[in-house]
Amino acid sequence: MNDQKPLKKIWFLFIAIFIICGTQAQEIQQRRGVEVVSPEINGDNSVTFRLYSENAQSVAVNGSWMEFGQNLEMKKGDDGVWSAKTAALEPSMYHYNFILDGVSIIDPRNPKALRDGTRYASTLIIPGEASEVFQVNDVPHGAITKVWYDSPTLKLNRRMYVYTPPGYAKSKEKYPVLYLLHGGGGDEDAWSSLGRANYILDNLIAEGKAKPMIVVMTNGNAEQSASVTDWSKLPDASQSFGPGANGNEQEIIDGMTKFPNSLVNDVIPYIEKHYKVIANSENRAIAGLSMGCLQTQITAMSNPGLFQYVGCFSLGIHFNTPFDLISNNILIPAYDQHLETMKNKLFYVGCGKDDFCYEGVQTLLKKLDEHNFECVYNETEGGHTWANWRIYLADYAPRLFK
Amino acid sequence: MNDQKPLKKIWFLFIAIFIICGTQAQEIQQRRGVEVVSPEINGDNSVTFRLYSENAQSVAVNGSWMEFGQNLEMKKGDDGVWSAKTAALEPSMYHYNFILDGVSIIDPRNPKALRDGTRYASTLIIPGEASEVFQVNDVPHGAITKVWYDSPTLKLNRRMYVYTPPGYAKSKEKYPVLYLLHGGGGDEDAWSSLGRANYILDNLIAEGKAKPMIVVMTNGNAEQSASVTDWSKLPDASQSFGPGANGNEQEIIDGMTKFPNSLVNDVIPYIEKHYKVIANSENRAIAGLSMGCLQTQITAMSNPGLFQYVGCFSLGIHFNTPFDLISNNILIPAYDQHLETMKNKLFYVGCGKDDFCYEGVQTLLKKLDEHNFECVYNETEGGHTWANWRIYLADYAPRLFK
Repeated sequence: MNDQKPLKKIWFLFIAIFIICGTQAQEIQQRRGVEVVSPEINGDNSVTFRLYSENAQSVAVNGSWMEFGQNLEMKKGDDGVWSAKTAALEPSMYHYNFILDGVSIIDPRNPKALRDGTRYASTLIIPGEASEVFQVNDVPHGAITKVWYDSPTLKLNRRMYVYTPPGYAKSKEKYPVLYLLHGGGGDEDAWSSLGRANYILDNLIAEGKAKPMIVVMTNGNAEQSASVTDWSKLPDASQSFGPGANGNEQEIIDGMTKFPNSLVNDVIPYIEKHYKVIANSENRAIAGLSMGCLQTQITAMSNPGLFQYVGCFSLGIHFNTPFDLISNNILIPAYDQHLETMKNKLFYVGCGKDDFCYEGVQTLLKKLDEHNFECVYNETEGGHTWANWRIYLADYAPRLFK
Repeated sequence: MNDQKPLKKIWFLFIAIFIICGTQAQEIQQRRGVEVVSPEINGDNSVTFRLYSENAQSVAVNGSWMEFGQNLEMKKGDDGVWSAKTAALEPSMYHYNFILDGVSIIDPRNPKALRDGTRYASTLIIPGEASEVFQVNDVPHGAITKVWYDSPTLKLNRRMYVYTPPGYAKSKEKYPVLYLLHGGGGDEDAWSSLGRANYILDNLIAEGKAKPMIVVMTNGNAEQSASVTDWSKLPDASQSFGPGANGNEQEIIDGMTKFPNSLVNDVIPYIEKHYKVIANSENRAIAGLSMGCLQTQITAMSNPGLFQYVGCFSLGIHFNTPFDLISNNILIPAYDQHLETMKNKLFYVGCGKDDFCYEGVQTLLKKLDEHNFECVYNETEGGHTWANWRIYLADYAPRLFK
């Protein structure tokens, strides 16, 4: 048994280095407590969440599968472990937080968390057919590059993420490009972390469903250089709500068109100069969700020859909301002026039945119909969620460049 | 005053989209509570931390500036806001967690958090001269690419991060390469997130202090394809402690040399095939911290002609520890065999005075001295910390390829 000794010692030393390397010395105290597994996906796709706290007064789970405002209370066992079990969940990727004595926290036992704007949530994938398309499967993977580029339009050096498909580095071919825009509160990180755009493309390309393409994921907040994690200064809260949130009417319109202008004047030229790109409208697509869908519509309709493929996820024309200003001044005139002569190969619209933007999307569909402009409309269950945006991307990408 | 109305409405709608887009509906309840600022860096570089919880029993801060095991208790005010103020902190980047009723959480008001292995911590930079080198400054930024490559040695498709310096994409030049290895519990993400290697290089290159170079940040855990965030399966806890943690003596040695072998046989050839690289030993450097320093020594000393620059951060030769096995079987024979004929341009050793590996580092220095092999030794304050590893990288990189 003597030859077991060095093994145990090495094991111990690795644990020691592992713990001491870290920054959270108090974890050791936690490790002395009860080791819990969380989340645990049960055989029937229900999920059990657990949190160890002797002292907490209340713990609940809030997850992206719940109705808005709902929580699931966790109950404390004699061993100090709080737990709760969900009903069976559909295969998808979910986000959740624990509410510990009123404070929203990530699950400390789940190493998978991600940032949504300025907040963090734990994540969880229920495996199944619907999840296959965004899983990390055993297929060739493209690369994601975090690139900084100059934006004279916004007077900033800015960051974006560029996905290049498998084989790109050694290929002599040129590729089509999809410009993919995030929503309000998000940034250039959102489409790969929450949206898993790179894995969706990897999987669709591996199956021959989508053409190999470059995907450019920008930061749509015209005042930001990069996501908050890559600023050295702490963020100014007044900058968190995207462009156009203050000023007079013209300033609002200017604010809202700033990013679309920089996309056209700065981003596209940078990509077409630095990447192996087929630089024509047949090989140029755009799509965006929510605020990014507004920016998509502004960009595509103000530059009617630029994109042959336009994807509108979870936003339309808001006649009866404060978007009046943008709708009345930019979108409706552009649709009325350009739709009949535009030859988009694809105008794709995706919206959930419970989306708070549903009415505006119907208005957009009506406007397209009014001009006999054909579109593909994908109406899904659910609302204004990443679960839906992943579905729309996986449905949109295979329709491009064909 | 009527023209103020649409502005307020737009503002409201943006907030609505911002909130509803997210996944944490309970945040709305929090917003109805007290809005606190945390962390707040005061004029004297002390820091005030705040957390709002009416129900918590105890809240403390644990930070990387504290002695091991120490916490700073937070006190509750009448408004339900817990707060604590540190002494003045030296300019550096720090990590911290709140301990809320015994649970380690990130600061919910701080949008900057990062992952250290399987755990998350909030981060904080105290500005000042010592922080300048890793801040996001207004200088040209290199790009970081997340690349997947085949490792026949490890029978895995694996991920690494590759930093290319500003101007790389359009340049016709070839570049030298630094291979940079993380420590136990880390992965390919660590050197850019915790170590800020890309910003350190950006700043040193902008000042003309370091030569433009490619930096390759690998995953040193031979069983992993990629960091835990990019696995689809939940991690197997038995795989968390790096290579060589089980098996008989030969298996331990094999486990510990697996990653160094894949670095030499898979990674370096991939980089030299896919990037604009000057592929010779004068333009090839390696450095690693802790477990990565052990791997650095194994790689460099088992392949004595491969690197002209070797950086050893916070680990040495452990004669009197379980690393005996590696030291006796690999390192010491290699040092004794090769040191007198090796012509490394630079052997750099960095260690903190309080590092638990301090003695082993002194043993390494003695071994080098025994063979009249010159090294650069940087002994700093503090211990086995990222604060020190950032310092060593910023000190090591300017000495390379000159």
